[in-house]
Amino acid sequence: MIYVSRKEHFNAAHKLANPNWSKEKNEQVFGPCANENWHGHNFELIVTVKGIPDPETGFVIDLKKLSVLIREHVIEKVDHKNLNVDVDFMKGKMASTETLAMEIWKILSKRIENASTTAELHCIKLYETPRNFVEYYGE
Amino acid sequence: MIYVSRKEHFNAAHKLANPNWSKEKNEQVFGPCANENWHGHNFELIVTVKGIPDPETGFVIDLKKLSVLIREHVIEKVDHKNLNVDVDFMKGKMASTETLAMEIWKILSKRIENASTTAELHCIKLYETPRNFVEYYGE
Amino acid sequence: MIYVSRKEHFNAAHKLANPNWSKEKNEQVFGPCANENWHGHNFELIVTVKGIPDPETGFVIDLKKLSVLIREHVIEKVDHKNLNVDVDFMKGKMASTETLAMEIWKILSKRIENASTTAELHCIKLYETPRNFVEYYGE
Amino acid sequence: MIYVSRKEHFNAAHKLANPNWSKEKNEQVFGPCANENWHGHNFELIVTVKGIPDPETGFVIDLKKLSVLIREHVIEKVDHKNLNVDVDFMKGKMASTETLAMEIWKILSKRIENASTTAELHCIKLYETPRNFVEYYGE
Amino acid sequence: MIYVSRKEHFNAAHKLANPNWSKEKNEQVFGPCANENWHGHNFELIVTVKGIPDPETGFVIDLKKLSVLIREHVIEKVDHKNLNVDVDFMKGKMASTETLAMEIWKILSKRIENASTTAELHCIKLYETPRNFVEYYGE
Amino acid sequence: MIYVSRKEHFNAAHKLANPNWSKEKNEQVFGPCANENWHGHNFELIVTVKGIPDPETGFVIDLKKLSVLIREHVIEKVDHKNLNVDVDFMKGKMASTETLAMEIWKILSKRIENASTTAELHCIKLYETPRNFVEYYGE
Repeated sequence: MIYVSRKEHFNAAHKLANPNWSKEKNEQVFGPCANENWHGHNFELIVTVKGIPDPETGFVIDLKKLSVLIREHVIEKVDHKNLNVDVDFMKGKMASTETLAMEIWKILSKRIENASTTAELHCIKLYETPRNFVEYYGE
Repeated sequence: MIYVSRKEHFNAAHKLANPNWSKEKNEQVFGPCANENWHGHNFELIVTVKGIPDPETGFVIDLKKLSVLIREHVIEKVDHKNLNVDVDFMKGKMASTETLAMEIWKILSKRIENASTTAELHCIKLYETPRNFVEYYGE
Repeated sequence: MIYVSRKEHFNAAHKLANPNWSKEKNEQVFGPCANENWHGHNFELIVTVKGIPDPETGFVIDLKKLSVLIREHVIEKVDHKNLNVDVDFMKGKMASTETLAMEIWKILSKRIENASTTAELHCIKLYETPRNFVEYYGE
Repeated sequence: MIYVSRKEHFNAAHKLANPNWSKEKNEQVFGPCANENWHGHNFELIVTVKGIPDPETGFVIDLKKLSVLIREHVIEKVDHKNLNVDVDFMKGKMASTETLAMEIWKILSKRIENASTTAELHCIKLYETPRNFVEYYGE
Repeated sequence: MIYVSRKEHFNAAHKLANPNWSKEKNEQVFGPCANENWHGHNFELIVTVKGIPDPETGFVIDLKKLSVLIREHVIEKVDHKNLNVDVDFMKGKMASTETLAMEIWKILSKRIENASTTAELHCIKLYETPRNFVEYYGE
Repeated sequence: MIYVSRKEHFNAAHKLANPNWSKEKNEQVFGPCANENWHGHNFELIVTVKGIPDPETGFVIDLKKLSVLIREHVIEKVDHKNLNVDVDFMKGKMASTETLAMEIWKILSKRIENASTTAELHCIKLYETPRNFVEYYGE
C-alpha cells in the first residue's frame, strides 16, 4: 500500500457568515472574516490517494490523470470564484475551509475509484493560508 | 549602506475591471480576474529600507518599529478587505498588484524617513501569488 | 471528524547537555549541539486539533482562539528565551525538540478541550530546522 | 512514542518506461516522462522514525546518525545519478517515485533498528516535485 | 517604472562536460555533475519585465500573456527534456545554468518587447536547486 | 556579466545589547532581543558573485568551490555558536544581522577574487528569520 499525493491551487473570495444571524452576531463570532465585501485566499489543495502499485506501470494512479480529475471537477469550479456565491456545491453551506474540504471529498472519491483499479481517496488537505489548514479522511 | 527588509502578509478580495468598459470588454481583457463576484489572494508584502547602521544600535531602522508602521498604515487597511470597495487609497484606481505597490510606496516613504535619521524606503515588493509579483522603487 | 491545524513560530536558544555528564561526554554525545555558550533556532510549531464541525459556525475550533491559546500559554514562555534557563516547564529536563513537543502537549491538551465542545488535541509538530522535526500524538 | 524526521535531498535523472513495451506504448502511457533521453528532478526525502526517547539523551535516535545512515546508504547511491541505469537496487524495476520509496524502506529499516534500542522506521516520504509526492509505511 | 515577475518551472536532465576534454578531465573539473548517464533538476524560472503601467489596464504586461510566451518558447522546449541532447538552442554549448539563462534571455527579449508597448525584459533568474541559482540582466 | 548565488545556513544564539548601556536601557531599546540568557535563529546566508563565464567551463565560479569557501571561512565559525561570545570577527561589535552581513563581506570578498579569474563578490544576503533579512553590497 502506497500513498500518492498531488498538489493544486486556486484563488477565491469568501466570507464567513451564518445567514440566520444578524450582521452584528456574525461580526462578533467571525471577526474580520465576516467582512460583508468579502476577502480571499490563495488556497493550496493536496489530494492523497492510496493503493497497490500496478506492476506494469509502477503507478497507484497516474498523477497526470489525477491532476486532470482535480482540475476538471474542483479547480474549474472554485478558481477565481466567490465560494459563497458562485460555487454550486457550496450553496446553502458555510464557506469555511472545513466545509470545502468535506465537499471536495464527496466530489472526488467516486471519480478516483473509477479512474484506477486499486486507488482509493485517502485525504483532502486544504491550506487557506500557510498557517491555517484542514485535513479530512472521509469519516 | 545596508538594505533591511521586513515581510508582512494580508488576505484580500479584488477584481480587475475598468469601470469605463463593458462587462464583455472587461472579461475579454482580464479573463477570470474580472469575475464580478470577486476572487482573492494571500498577499505577501516585503518592504526594503536602506541606510547607514546607527553605531549605537547596529540598526538602519528598528525592524519592530518598521513592522508596526507597515501594520498600522497598510495591513490594517487592506487585510480581510475588498481592495476595490473597502480601501480608501485605492478608490478610483485599478485594483491591480502594480497599482497597490505604488500606493503603498506613497503611504510608507515619508513615514519611514521620519522614523529614523538615516533610513530611506528602497523597494516595495508585493506577491499576489507565489508565481506573480511586482517590485516598485519609487521612480 | 475533521483535523484543523494552526502554525506559530518562536525563536529560542538552547543546548543539548545531560547535567549528570562531564563536559567531555556531553560533547562526545551531542557534538556542536552541546556548545556551552548555546546556539538557537527559529522553531515552527503546528498544533492539530480534531473534532466535528459545529453546524452553526462550520468550525471544529475557532482558529483565532486556538492561536491565542498557543501564544498565551506556549509562545510567550519560549519566544526570545533560553529553553534550558528561562522556561519553567522545561526545568530539569533535556532541552531537546522531542521533550519540548511532549511538554507543549501537556500544556495545551486540557485548554483545547475546554475551549470547544467537540475539539480534542491531535498532534504537536515541532520543526527545529526545516530538515529536523518531531511529532507527538499524546501516547 | 514520538516521531522524529530528517529531510535530505538528491538530484537524479530518470525516465518512466516499461521495457516490455514498445516505444509508442510507453509514450502513450507515460507521456513526456517516457522521453528516451531522460529528464530529472531535485528529489526531497523525509525519513520518519518512531520510538520512546532515551531518558539520558532525550533522543529516539540521534538525528546526526540518522542523517549519516541516509547519506551513506541512499543519497550516495542516487545523487547525481541516473535511476534507471546507475542504481543497483533499482535494476529491473520501474524507476517511479513509488518504487524508489519502497526500495529505500528496504535499505533503511534494518539499519535504523540496529542504530538505536527503541527506534523503528515509520515512513518514507519522497517528493519528486513540490507538487507530486508519495509516502510508504512498510505495509 | 514597475517590475513585474512570473515564475514557471520545468524538469530536465543534463550533465556538465566539455566535449573537447577527456572523461577524466571532465570528472576532475565537474565532479558528479559530469556523470555520463546524466542527472537532473526541477528548475524554477523567474522572468522579470519592467515598464510603465498602461492606465487603462494597470498592466505593464498581461501576466497571462507573459506566461503563455514563456511556456510556448521556453518551457515546451526544455520540460521533460535532456538539455545537452534534446534542446536546439543549447546545441554545442555547455549545459550549465549560466548558459541556459543567457539563451532564455535571447529567446524572450524580442518577443516581450513585441507583446507590449512599454514592457522590456529586465532579468532572467534560474534556480537549478533551491540553493544554487543565477541571474542575467542582458549585459 | 552573470550573477551566481549559493545559499548556506547556520544555527546560532545571540542577543542585541550595547555593552555601554544599562540592562534597563538595552531592554527598552531592543525589547525581547536583549534577553540576557540569549535567544537564537536558523540563519540563511546567500552569497552572490558576479563575473563573465569561463568559455571552457561555463562557470563564473565553481559553486562547489564557493560552497567550500563559505563553509570553511564563515559557517564553521558561526554554526552552533553564540555570535556575541564565540565568534572572533564579531568581538566588540553589535551582534546584529546588519553587522554580521558586513563582516561576512570582509571575510569573503578577497577570497572569492582569489578563487576565480573573473568573479567578484556582489552581495551578502542574510535571513535572520523568513520575515527579517538584510543585504549588503560592499559600499
